[in-house]
Amino acid sequence: MTCWHNTFDSETHETAFSIDPTSISFGPGVLREVGESLAGSKRVALFTDAQVGKLPMLETVRESLKKAGIDFELYANVHVEPTNASFEEAARFARDGKFDSFVSLGGGSVIDTCKAAALLSSCEGGLMAYVNAPVGEGRVVPRELPRHIACPTTCGTGSECTGIAVFDHLELKVKTGIASRRLRPTRALIDPTATEFLPRMVVAASAFDVLSHALESYTARPFSSRAKPVNAARPMSQGRNPWSDVGSLEALRLAGKFLVRAVHDASDFEARSQLSWAATLAGVAFGNSGVHLPHAMSYAVAGLVKSYRCEGYPGDEPLVPHGISVVVNAPSVFRATASSSPERHAEAARALGASLEADAPLAEVVATLSGTLTRLMRDAGIPNGLSALGYEDEDVPALTKGTLLQKRLLDNAPVPVDEALMSSLFRGAQRCW
Amino acid sequence: MTCWHNTFDSETHETAFSIDPTSISFGPGVLREVGESLAGSKRVALFTDAQVGKLPMLETVRESLKKAGIDFELYANVHVEPTNASFEEAARFARDGKFDSFVSLGGGSVIDTCKAAALLSSCEGGLMAYVNAPVGEGRVVPRELPRHIACPTTCGTGSECTGIAVFDHLELKVKTGIASRRLRPTRALIDPTATEFLPRMVVAASAFDVLSHALESYTARPFSSRAKPVNAARPMSQGRNPWSDVGSLEALRLAGKFLVRAVHDASDFEARSQLSWAATLAGVAFGNSGVHLPHAMSYAVAGLVKSYRCEGYPGDEPLVPHGISVVVNAPSVFRATASSSPERHAEAARALGASLEADAPLAEVVATLSGTLTRLMRDAGIPNGLSALGYEDEDVPALTKGTLLQKRLLDNAPVPVDEALMSSLFRGAQRCW
Repeated sequence: MTCWHNTFDSETHETAFSIDPTSISFGPGVLREVGESLAGSKRVALFTDAQVGKLPMLETVRESLKKAGIDFELYANVHVEPTNASFEEAARFARDGKFDSFVSLGGGSVIDTCKAAALLSSCEGGLMAYVNAPVGEGRVVPRELPRHIACPTTCGTGSECTGIAVFDHLELKVKTGIASRRLRPTRALIDPTATEFLPRMVVAASAFDVLSHALESYTARPFSSRAKPVNAARPMSQGRNPWSDVGSLEALRLAGKFLVRAVHDASDFEARSQLSWAATLAGVAFGNSGVHLPHAMSYAVAGLVKSYRCEGYPGDEPLVPHGISVVVNAPSVFRATASSSPERHAEAARALGASLEADAPLAEVVATLSGTLTRLMRDAGIPNGLSALGYEDEDVPALTKGTLLQKRLLDNAPVPVDEALMSSLFRGAQRCW
Repeated sequence: MTCWHNTFDSETHETAFSIDPTSISFGPGVLREVGESLAGSKRVALFTDAQVGKLPMLETVRESLKKAGIDFELYANVHVEPTNASFEEAARFARDGKFDSFVSLGGGSVIDTCKAAALLSSCEGGLMAYVNAPVGEGRVVPRELPRHIACPTTCGTGSECTGIAVFDHLELKVKTGIASRRLRPTRALIDPTATEFLPRMVVAASAFDVLSHALESYTARPFSSRAKPVNAARPMSQGRNPWSDVGSLEALRLAGKFLVRAVHDASDFEARSQLSWAATLAGVAFGNSGVHLPHAMSYAVAGLVKSYRCEGYPGDEPLVPHGISVVVNAPSVFRATASSSPERHAEAARALGASLEADAPLAEVVATLSGTLTRLMRDAGIPNGLSALGYEDEDVPALTKGTLLQKRLLDNAPVPVDEALMSSLFRGAQRCW
């Protein structure tokens, strides 16, 4: 049970929260429902990436579209960890094709690219017009976007439940994104059997992305700490609330129980499907609360990558998988945020499987949550902190600078953020154990 | 954690579930957002009932519509516990008014009447065309309905989250309804301060409606026990699933903790707002799983009412409030269904506040769940079973006959239902303690 009693003045502060969930179908076989989900569509853009394009799921989706008599065109060039250039290229494809609907089949990169293509092919202004300020103009998406059926194939990201699309700006050397409720897919079709084809490290990275969505959502600033809005349009990063708490805690329980099994055994369908379900619950939760520091920091960690490569990921460019760039920051962050709500940090540790007495002192809460996180990370084969990704102490100023641009996420943190705090969080993330 | 591993053959049985949730804003003050939620509307039908029409919430909604420059017309004649006649009258108002959008402000009766009016004023065929078979034709709703913003004022019903509208058919002497995803309101604005005006028994009845939504949703047949559908159109009563489990359990926890306080103290804002939140969670849950026997039986219990009247309810006709007509059946039903999933019935009892060891034998599970329910009912002032509502043993055949018509709900029960079982459930519901 979560109490949302306002400790803030209700005359000047927010008193309500909004829930805008995605419609979802979940279970083995739902990819066969893509065509039916698009009843009435005439021409569909189908987005995927080169790896997923080789798997049987693509054929399932094609067959479903054909059976429904829907004309479609395939775009299999999605760039894993998308860039402004790859978003623009996908948008050109979408503009040229004059599609009335969109389907994405893949991980977060594919779903985000499809969101961007749907937006940029149906609204004026170009990419930077819609990118979050201060990096972009932060313009409001002016109309409803075409239908988008999202079919995630990783047990992670939650992108199918959110209105966020993330990319690396190559020239600015920063990871940033677009955030608008209108970017949210119309429906998510989540077939957990898709995860049996995933390499170990892809599961590990996306699993920790899920875990961190849940933990950040559960520990974000309370929605009631925001100033009262001038109208009913709440930000997507509205802060933790009773709705996001329910999904976050359940996702943490599932992650604590199934994450390590899911990483190490591709044939463990129970573990991988429970992790897919945890990803969905965490997506529904953080899609209505927002994440905070580990994600804010991940943008710089991924954007400033030097030479790190991760097994299981395609291409030969340096790349820090999103979930890894997030979770290496997590132990450092949650040690620093625990004092903002010790009982929540304790409850999160318990949900992940730790034992903690009801009246455990703060130091014990900090040690237990951090210890539980690092144990899971070690057991899943996650690199030991920023140093293992090639960063040194001298990189902290650049990482800090990149992170301080992520205003939307920093505002959602449960503690006030400044340069000094950020530097110390990055120093604390050099090694996780 | 809920496991949805199929104990049924996945070639012949359902393997997936669908979630079609409503958008919601929850918190003190959200009624002021009605106008903004209807941006673009020109002409709105505003439904309420005579009691709610006297309360300040109506003025809040009117002001919000005026401020947004939206022309609206008030229909304050909603019949509490609606009938085919009252649905038809509301539909005439809606047809004559040529509205593009609908707002309902009230309890389940108001929201359900508004759903029916929106449907019947925008689709051909008349009421009985859309009523569930075998009572009505069970015709599919042929198009998207106009926007409907539902503003519940009781801490119950969950109607704002479902595609169901229930009424008494006066001539057939049966309670029945319409069920279609398209009846689901576009958005729910839930302001828990509205509940401070509710009489004690209105809170009690709606609270037990909530509790039973959660308990029925949590113990319904598993979604995977249904035959594989011929297309992706799952019934709304698709059976319990991992999504409905999460919301149901949390709603049970909140009901166990706050129900009795909320009934007895109108000034206990924490208890009443937590109960409103439980109602929302239970609505989101059972809206995607369906309820079963206590609700199926309630239709006959309410439809065959003799002379029972309940304090706090308007009018001078005999009337069994919906939540009371449901929960008087609950102890009898859950004693009979516990063997279908003892661990779930035990978990539900624990969520309601009972202590039960992990390996408690079935008889103890049955006694504990039933005892926990009846203790809450007694403490909240609920009548002691059907006998306290004026029914005797000789009424059991008529109650049974009326219930056997509720195919949609009976199909969702976790045990096979026949006349003999139904009679014994009604006999067991004559007295609850």
